[in-house]
Parts: sequence; structure tokens; C-alpha cells
Amino acid sequence: MNTFGRKFRIHLWGESHGESIGASIDGCPPGIPLSENDLHNNLQRRKSGARGTTSRMEADKPHIISGLYNGFTTGAPLTIMFLNENIRSSDYSQFKAMPRPGHADYTASQKYGGFNDPRGGGHFSGRLTLGLVAVGVIAKKIIDPINIRATVSEAGGSTCVDRIIEQALQENDLVGGLIACTVTNVPVGLGEPFFDSVESVLAHGLFSIPAIKGVEFGAGFAAAKMKGSEHNDAFVSPDGKTATNNAGGINGGISNGNNLVFRVAVKPASSIGHAQQTFNFETNKMDTLEIQGRHDTCIALRMPVIVEAVTAIVLADFTLLNHK
Amino acid sequence: MNTFGRKFRIHLWGESHGESIGASIDGCPPGIPLSENDLHNNLQRRKSGARGTTSRMEADKPHIISGLYNGFTTGAPLTIMFLNENIRSSDYSQFKAMPRPGHADYTASQKYGGFNDPRGGGHFSGRLTLGLVAVGVIAKKIIDPINIRATVSEAGGSTCVDRIIEQALQENDLVGGLIACTVTNVPVGLGEPFFDSVESVLAHGLFSIPAIKGVEFGAGFAAAKMKGSEHNDAFVSPDGKTATNNAGGINGGISNGNNLVFRVAVKPASSIGHAQQTFNFETNKMDTLEIQGRHDTCIALRMPVIVEAVTAIVLADFTLLNHK
Amino acid sequence: MNTFGRKFRIHLWGESHGESIGASIDGCPPGIPLSENDLHNNLQRRKSGARGTTSRMEADKPHIISGLYNGFTTGAPLTIMFLNENIRSSDYSQFKAMPRPGHADYTASQKYGGFNDPRGGGHFSGRLTLGLVAVGVIAKKIIDPINIRATVSEAGGSTCVDRIIEQALQENDLVGGLIACTVTNVPVGLGEPFFDSVESVLAHGLFSIPAIKGVEFGAGFAAAKMKGSEHNDAFVSPDGKTATNNAGGINGGISNGNNLVFRVAVKPASSIGHAQQTFNFETNKMDTLEIQGRHDTCIALRMPVIVEAVTAIVLADFTLLNHK
Amino acid sequence: MNTFGRKFRIHLWGESHGESIGASIDGCPPGIPLSENDLHNNLQRRKSGARGTTSRMEADKPHIISGLYNGFTTGAPLTIMFLNENIRSSDYSQFKAMPRPGHADYTASQKYGGFNDPRGGGHFSGRLTLGLVAVGVIAKKIIDPINIRATVSEAGGSTCVDRIIEQALQENDLVGGLIACTVTNVPVGLGEPFFDSVESVLAHGLFSIPAIKGVEFGAGFAAAKMKGSEHNDAFVSPDGKTATNNAGGINGGISNGNNLVFRVAVKPASSIGHAQQTFNFETNKMDTLEIQGRHDTCIALRMPVIVEAVTAIVLADFTLLNHK
Repeated sequence: MNTFGRKFRIHLWGESHGESIGASIDGCPPGIPLSENDLHNNLQRRKSGARGTTSRMEADKPHIISGLYNGFTTGAPLTIMFLNENIRSSDYSQFKAMPRPGHADYTASQKYGGFNDPRGGGHFSGRLTLGLVAVGVIAKKIIDPINIRATVSEAGGSTCVDRIIEQALQENDLVGGLIACTVTNVPVGLGEPFFDSVESVLAHGLFSIPAIKGVEFGAGFAAAKMKGSEHNDAFVSPDGKTATNNAGGINGGISNGNNLVFRVAVKPASSIGHAQQTFNFETNKMDTLEIQGRHDTCIALRMPVIVEAVTAIVLADFTLLNHK
Repeated sequence: MNTFGRKFRIHLWGESHGESIGASIDGCPPGIPLSENDLHNNLQRRKSGARGTTSRMEADKPHIISGLYNGFTTGAPLTIMFLNENIRSSDYSQFKAMPRPGHADYTASQKYGGFNDPRGGGHFSGRLTLGLVAVGVIAKKIIDPINIRATVSEAGGSTCVDRIIEQALQENDLVGGLIACTVTNVPVGLGEPFFDSVESVLAHGLFSIPAIKGVEFGAGFAAAKMKGSEHNDAFVSPDGKTATNNAGGINGGISNGNNLVFRVAVKPASSIGHAQQTFNFETNKMDTLEIQGRHDTCIALRMPVIVEAVTAIVLADFTLLNHK
Repeated sequence: MNTFGRKFRIHLWGESHGESIGASIDGCPPGIPLSENDLHNNLQRRKSGARGTTSRMEADKPHIISGLYNGFTTGAPLTIMFLNENIRSSDYSQFKAMPRPGHADYTASQKYGGFNDPRGGGHFSGRLTLGLVAVGVIAKKIIDPINIRATVSEAGGSTCVDRIIEQALQENDLVGGLIACTVTNVPVGLGEPFFDSVESVLAHGLFSIPAIKGVEFGAGFAAAKMKGSEHNDAFVSPDGKTATNNAGGINGGISNGNNLVFRVAVKPASSIGHAQQTFNFETNKMDTLEIQGRHDTCIALRMPVIVEAVTAIVLADFTLLNHK
Repeated sequence: MNTFGRKFRIHLWGESHGESIGASIDGCPPGIPLSENDLHNNLQRRKSGARGTTSRMEADKPHIISGLYNGFTTGAPLTIMFLNENIRSSDYSQFKAMPRPGHADYTASQKYGGFNDPRGGGHFSGRLTLGLVAVGVIAKKIIDPINIRATVSEAGGSTCVDRIIEQALQENDLVGGLIACTVTNVPVGLGEPFFDSVESVLAHGLFSIPAIKGVEFGAGFAAAKMKGSEHNDAFVSPDGKTATNNAGGINGGISNGNNLVFRVAVKPASSIGHAQQTFNFETNKMDTLEIQGRHDTCIALRMPVIVEAVTAIVLADFTLLNHK
């Protein structure tokens, strides 16, 4: 489903090469000061342009078409629309016969009986994350002074991210990356276990971002290798601060007032420049596929602001649910 | 919230030392043959008793108290109750002053204003997973012939699980573990992106299991280190089978007909036998905490069947939603 | 579905002649003082015993099996179970061939493929409303000082209710009735339009009560006959009180601080004592059906407390959602 | 909330005098043939123009901005937008001091802290129903061959609707009306009791339409006056057809295969042409309010197609949920 959240609920729509993509917020509190300009910085961080990102450049200009009046949110659904521009109408029919490995071409066609819009990945395009980032800006205002900061900590297995990108560009290849996120000023008590633990809802949102294939909190996978005596975070102060933070700021699915810490694994994008051997479903034999177009060498580079947005959206929902 | 799922919806309740724990299924299809006996094997796998698991033994006898008639599910809510037995009423008041590091003592008390039931972890006890396992048995019947198999692949960072357990027992310490899960006979087309991708909903369910701190699909965190040319899974046959399975059987959030593959990281349990230095919120200074009681040396040992249950519950919901 | 509510969410299960019926609340706030005894008065009002109600008498003793600790709600799911007693195991197989007119026999059998529990109406029994009434008591505590009062205002089309009941008893017939409900001390601002208007959510809940076939707010159906100049409720005081209350206390789907006023139409119960001509689906021709058993002459007599309970449940959800 | 439905889910946004209003469908099945032209007839039926409707005329031209590709729905969210035109920017500030009786002016301002858009009723405008009607067209395609037909059966208490309208026009007054709806070709088995009975979900949707204050199914309020022996609908044929239809085609909350029959009461619109005495919240005393502008003499005239749309939306959801 394209709807997420319980009290602060986001609805996403659109296709990469359709007329527009957009997002609408159901349950947006009234009285939040907002202008289209406020979205600029975060949209800019998501944008391509840096070394290692695609040369498809779009204005990404947001239009707030409902829910805003005299510079404040009204409490009615807040809707943000982005027109699609700079679309190159290349031929996508080849991907019916030869769905691109790693893409949604095959699964979307099977699931939707061939009616899905294949152009630019259609509804499965990373372009949908524009709406997430825009809504994330509003969510960040709601949760203030909670502060979220995500950065690319590794690319291609190395912390020397720039060097790895250059190397991949020279090899005409793509690389995956790791994003680390730290949330500060988190109050105690966010999260709604059993099923809506902080980890559960955050992971739900994060795994909806295309290309994310792993999520870990605190020590995460390293915790699986630890002893109990190493892992426990002793409390050290009256406000519940702990000496270590192996739990990533969450006990029993509820925030404990320490920093919320997690990492997400981003796979390399799938549109590699090299020719690939893959199955041709029309000729019924293996064939060579070459994908043209403009792509991201390291898609992870554009994702920290998206990770922040999803985190803000989840925390805004928890915050509004928590009010007594 | 204690409710999970959209068409096949589970509701959990209960406390470790309360009268009972239970689960109710809303949206259970009619006509599934079922007896209390059918639950035995899976409940047995969750049970303690093996070396490295707690000595608190319970009968874990399920009572199906609604939704079953003449040996078949009726389509009305199916409710399963377990009476709590073998409860040792130790003194939990000490944990008000000194919440146990790694437990939900502190966060639950803060969130629920001190009204939470602290005995045995109350609603945050791993005992709640009994209901998951019971419902998982029914979910497995719904998704047949899809087959789910989870196993402990590592404990304390080693694949020699038995040796690690013995060592931890001798050191009076606890260890974390890694669980690997493989799902076979998965049809193409399960999953409801954008927000309800297979990864999203599975991770949502998995992270609600106490002690799970990481989830990765396919190559997972290793994908962050890979190149695009290494990561892509080429199609090799008319039914969409791929040569490799770095995607873990999911493209664009939708199952692609290959095996669904994922791993979860389980932290060591928190009730370590050693004395710990932690904050005393009554005296307002650091203090020594010693936790008595019967605990699991490696809680991961009891969790494969719980991971399977959550997976079955998620796939049952996707399966029922997918019917046209 | 058997789940209702967004933040204060009730889950119902059970069958008339099964082992038990019950209700569980997800999202019950912590710290509400509660004992099983508190449920007595409302359960008593629902009970049979008065002239015109069935002679099937049950203890209706509630068991709170989770979510309560030391006399207060804990914030975890609160579950209430009622054991079924005084069950007469009559033969329901005749109703397979001749489903009772007005009952769910036919539709339930068709929808659930014949697997539904037919005994005493199974999951479609009015007995399920026991859970509603029990949860209603807790909801009433949450919304205090909002006060709800429902009464039978008419039976069989007359306000002389007692006389109508006597007459029906003599004729061995059943009668419908009208229930009027007034809610006082309602704050301004409850309701979540567009779709979750006060009328929408209240009607949703009320129409789930078996036998209710009409709901109207304020002037209701009479408003369809009125002129605008008659219908408008002029404001007359700084707190928004109005001179008349044709709107029933709701403008634009939101409570306006005046009394919330609505009426519900209750059809006569369907188990009439007379022989009926109806279709025999086995012999494939019309046949005579005689229904034995103990039934309510005027089912509406037992329903005011159920109407109050649903109203309280809806207003509790709105109240908790409204907190800023 | 502005979201309705479980598997076929509609999301509405917009304000009367904002830039646009719109609707997006989450869960729209793929492969439905659709063009903007298909929406014309139903949108036309909702439109003003007839005697007794407002002189504010808008093009009401739909723009399908996502979810459509090559003339078929894609399975991704289908979004329809309407630009607002012919807006007269009159002065709404007077309604802060003197909220219009019967309107949402007072409640919306109180609920949203004065941040709501007051122009033309803002988000509470009947204009929002444009989105309902558009989505209703698609829902009607999904449920085919189920057929829905709603008509105005009474205005101002009389079946001579035209005469009543003329009279009201001459008196510069407004009148309420009654809408009757009959649904044919309904399969047995729609509806998801306990809480999501056909009556419950239909009433939920219908009461979200502005100005609807009563809903009754089958005999409805008349059933409250009936005897059991009169009310029961005897079965008369192997396909479950009944001799009478006092139940309105619903038993136990589930459709029984007979016609679904219900009526809704529409109050007169609130913007009467006469001067009204009502409270002035700034001067703190009673005052005279005169409302300028173009209004509907009998708003019920425009509502049959809206009632049909909501009915189609609800039945589409039930239909998709019912698939096995």
C-alpha cells in the first residue's frame, strides 16, 4: 500500500515518466509555519549533481496544492506535487522481453498483469522518494527539537568514499554504500510495542526506500557476536543516560532517551553500464542486455536525506500518538 | 499497538506472570482443519529444555477458545489462550529503583507512568511470542506449499554453536546469535509496495520479536560493499529463476519467485548472572545489581520457530491480499 | 473485521455456544482504576430478566485476564473473558436446510462455506455485545465527565412501552423499538472529518450492533422535511451553545459542544414463536419452520446499555486522538 | 481522517477556494480501462445548473495525474485532480466573529486553532465530493455487474419535488430532501462483520457526505414499529431471494443476494438567504448575520450521484476483500 502511518499518515503517488509525482499528509497538525521555500535545502540534498550521481537533472520544484493557508498548515490534508520534467522518452519495450536484473521490471509486470507503467521504472522509480523528502521536512518541524543526521559512512566497503566513487566511474561500474543515522534529543517513551516497536516501524519505513537491503539498530549484527556482559548498557544518570549504547537508544521497543542509532545497507543500483547476460522471455533463451541512460554510480550518496525523512515521519507519528 | 496485519490480522495480549497470554486472529479463512494438537511441534521447538535454555519449564498447552467448530476454522476470530504456570513470585520492586540494563524496565515504567506490570517483564516478556508461534502454525497452513525454514547459523560469532554455548555456561555469561531463514516455493507477486514491500512488512514483524536488532535480505549488509556488476541477479529461466540470489528473492519490494532469504541478528539476553554496576534511581548514585532467576544462555536457540511464525503470518497476509 | 478504533481499539471474539466470548482493548491508557466489580452495573442492564426479555439467564461474570495490575490498567492490552454457561444443545442442523428468516444463518453459511458455527447464531449472536458493554465501562471512565444516557423511547411504534410488550407477549409475537441517546458535557472538537466525522464513526459502531437498521442525528429524517430557516441552530452564547439542536451537536462532522443527540431503530428479533413459511434449500420447496427456544419479545429493551457502550468507545477513541 | 477503505482505499484532499481538490486511490486493481472522458457523465450529474442548484458553475474537468498508462489503470495509486475555478474572493473574515449557523465555521476554527482555511468552507466544502464522484466511477467499473441507482424521492417532505423547489425559490428559503438508493445484482457474502457489516461501512461512508443526517436500511425506522411476524423476510427460492425485503438485502451484516436498499436524509443547506439572529463572538452579544453568495436551494438534488459513488466505493472494497 502507498499509505504509511497511523496519526501522521503519508500517501504517495506517481510515476517516473508520468505527469507528476506527489505526496499527501493526512493528520498534519494545524499551525505549522511552512512555505515551499522551506523544502529547498532537503530537496537539494537529495538531488543529483555531485560526482557519482546521475546527470538527469530536474528542477524538483514543489507545489503545495492543499492544506496551507496564510503560511500555516491548516490541519486538512497537506498535498505536495512535483511536475516531471526532463524526461527522455526512450524505448522501454525491450524490458518486456528482457527485464533488467535487479529492477522491478519482472515482478511489477507479473504482479500487475503487464499493466504497470514501465517507463523509467514507473511507480518503482527512486523518484517517488521526492515526496518522502518533502514530507520529511514537515515531520522534522513537528518533532523539533529532536534532531536527525544521516551520512554516508562507507561506499563499496570503504570509508574513503570519494576514492571508491572515482574508481567505480573509471570502471563504468556502480557501488553500494552504508548510511549511518544518529538521532539526538529523543524523549523517553516513543514506540508502541508489541508490534509497533521503534525498530519495527522505522524498519518498515526504511525498507520501503528502494535499494535498502539491511537495517540494524545500535550494535546490530555485531550484537549477535557479543556476550551479555559486553552488550548491556548500564544506566549512569538520573535521566536514563547509559554508558554505552549497544541498544541504539531502544529498550523493549521504546526509546530510552539516549541517541537513536541505526545503519542501513544500500545495494548498488541495478542499471549497470556493462552488457549483461540474462534471460530473454520472448526468445526463451539467454541474451545480452545493454542498458542506456543516465544513472547513479553510487545511489547511496543521494539517500541520507531520504533516510532522515523516513525517520522524521516515523518519529512524528510516534510523537503525535504519544501525546496524552 | 498489539495488532498486526491487514487481512490476516493478529492481536496479542498478556503478561509473563499474569493469568494468561493469548492471541486472536481476525480474518482467519474458514475451512482450515485444525486441532490443538497441530500446534504441539512448533510450540515444542520454542520451548526451553535444551542445553543453553532456561530451566523455567511450562506446559505451554494451547486452548483454542473461539473460531473452531467440528475441527475446522469457522472464519470468525480464532483465539488461542495459554494459562501461565510455574510462576515464581520473586520480588520485582528492586527493579523500580534499579531497572535492569537492556530490559524494558526503565522505558516501560516511564511510558506507562509506572502502571506497567513489572513481574517477569510483564507484557514485554518473551513469553508473548507463544501466541506468535501458535498463530504461525495456522499461517503455515494457509500459505502451503510455501515452506519456511529458520535455523541458528551462528552463536557468539561462531558457527560452532554448541561449543560457544558450553563456554558461555562455564563463564556464567550469555551470548547473541544469528538466525538464517530460507523460504521456498514462493510465488511471484507477493508484496504491496510502495510502503508494504516484502522487506518492509517482514522487517516490521521481525523487529517486534524481543532481542532482534538487525534484519538483512539476500546479500544484505554485504551488498553495501559490492559492485553493481557483482550484485545483479541475472535471470536464467522462463519462470524467473536467477543465477545468484543477492536480492534475497525480492525485486522492487515484490517476491520474484526465487527463494526468500534473510538473516536476523539476536542480541544476548539481558539478565546476566554477573553483578552489574548501574544507576540506582532512588539513591541517585551508581550501585550493584544482581539478577536472580532462570534464564537463557543463548536466547537465539529458541527463536527459529518464532522467526518462522512471523514470516508465515506476513506471507499469509500477503497471500490473502493478493487473491484476485 | 472484528477490530474497531484507531487509538483505542477493541477486538471481539467468540460464539454463542462456544467455550467463551471476549474482548481485548489495544491502546487502553494506563492508570485507570478498574475491578471486575466495576463492570457489574452495566452488564446487569444488558442482562435478561425483565418482562419481555429471554429466559436464558447467564451469570455473565467477567474475567479480566490481562492488562490489569494492582487495580489499575497497565497500558498493555486489557482482555476480558466471559465463559458461556446455561447452553442448551438443541439441534441446529435443521437450520442448514431451512435458514431462519431474518437471521444470519443463510448469509454466514454462504460466506464461510458452511464452516461457521451455527449453534445459537455462533459468532453472529447478540451475546457478542457482552464484550462491547464491558469495554464500554472502561471507555466511560476515559471520557469522564462526558455523560451518555440511552433509553428505549418507543416499542412497536408506541411510547407506552410496557403495554406494547404485554400485548406482544399475549400474541406470542416480537416487537421492534426505538432508542434515544443523549450525550452531555461534550467538548468542542471531537471528530476527524472528512471520513471520520462523528456521525460516520458513531454510525459505523452502532450499525455493528445486531438488529439496528437505522441511525439519525439531531433532527435526522425530520430534517429532510424541513426548511433551512427552520433547521439552522443559531448560536446564543460565548461557549457555542445553540438555541435549537437540529444538528444533534455536530457541525461539519465535529462536535460543537452542545449535547450529542441521536436515535437508533431496532428491528424486532427474528426468532418468532409462530410457524413461518420459508424455503427449504434441501427439498427445494417452501416448507414450515418452527423455532423453539427462549427469546426476547423486545430485543430493544436490552440495548440501551449497548448503545451507550459503543458511543463511549467511539468518543474515547476521538478523545485520545484529539489530545495535542 | 481523509482516508477510507481497507483494500480499495480513497484519500481526499483540497479546499473550496484553494488551488485544487483531488482524490487518490490506493489499491486500485490494474487493467481497468479508463479515460478522463469516462468520468464526464457522473460529474455532470453532480454539477449545478438545474433549477434549485447554485449558479456557481465550474468546469469540473478531471486530470488523471497518476496510475494510468495506455488507457488502463496500472495498479499504482490512481490520482485525479480538479483545478478550482470561478472562485469569488469574498470576505470571509466576518465569519470569524459570526460563524454561520449549521456550517463548520465554528467547529473547524475551534478544532484547528483558527488555522483552517475559511474560504468557501475550506476543506469542509461540498466541493470535496467531486473526488468521491470521480473515484465512484472507477469503483462502479470494479463491481460491475452490480448496479447502483440513487434518486431524490422527496424534498421538503413531499414527493412533488419540483413544486417544493419552486416554492422554496419564491420564499428565498432552502429545503432538505430524501434520497433512496437501490443496488441490484448484489452477490451473497459481501460484508465483514462483526464491526465491518455492510450497514456499518456504508453508513460510515454515507455520513461523511456533508449534510447527511440519517441513514436507514430496508424498513429502517419503520422496522422499529413492526412486529416480528411482519418484519421477517421469508426465503422463496434456491438462490436466497426473499418475498419481502425489510432487511434491505442484509442479514447479520452480510449481503443476502437480494437488492440492497437504503435511504438517506439530507438536511437543508445552511447558507440561507434570510437574515439570521446569531451570536457575535467578538462583541459577545446576539447580532444579525446576512450571508451573500450563490447557493443550492435543495442540496439533495445534487447528491444522488454522490450517494452512488460512496456506495460503489464501499462495495468495491468489500468485493476485493471477498476474493478468495
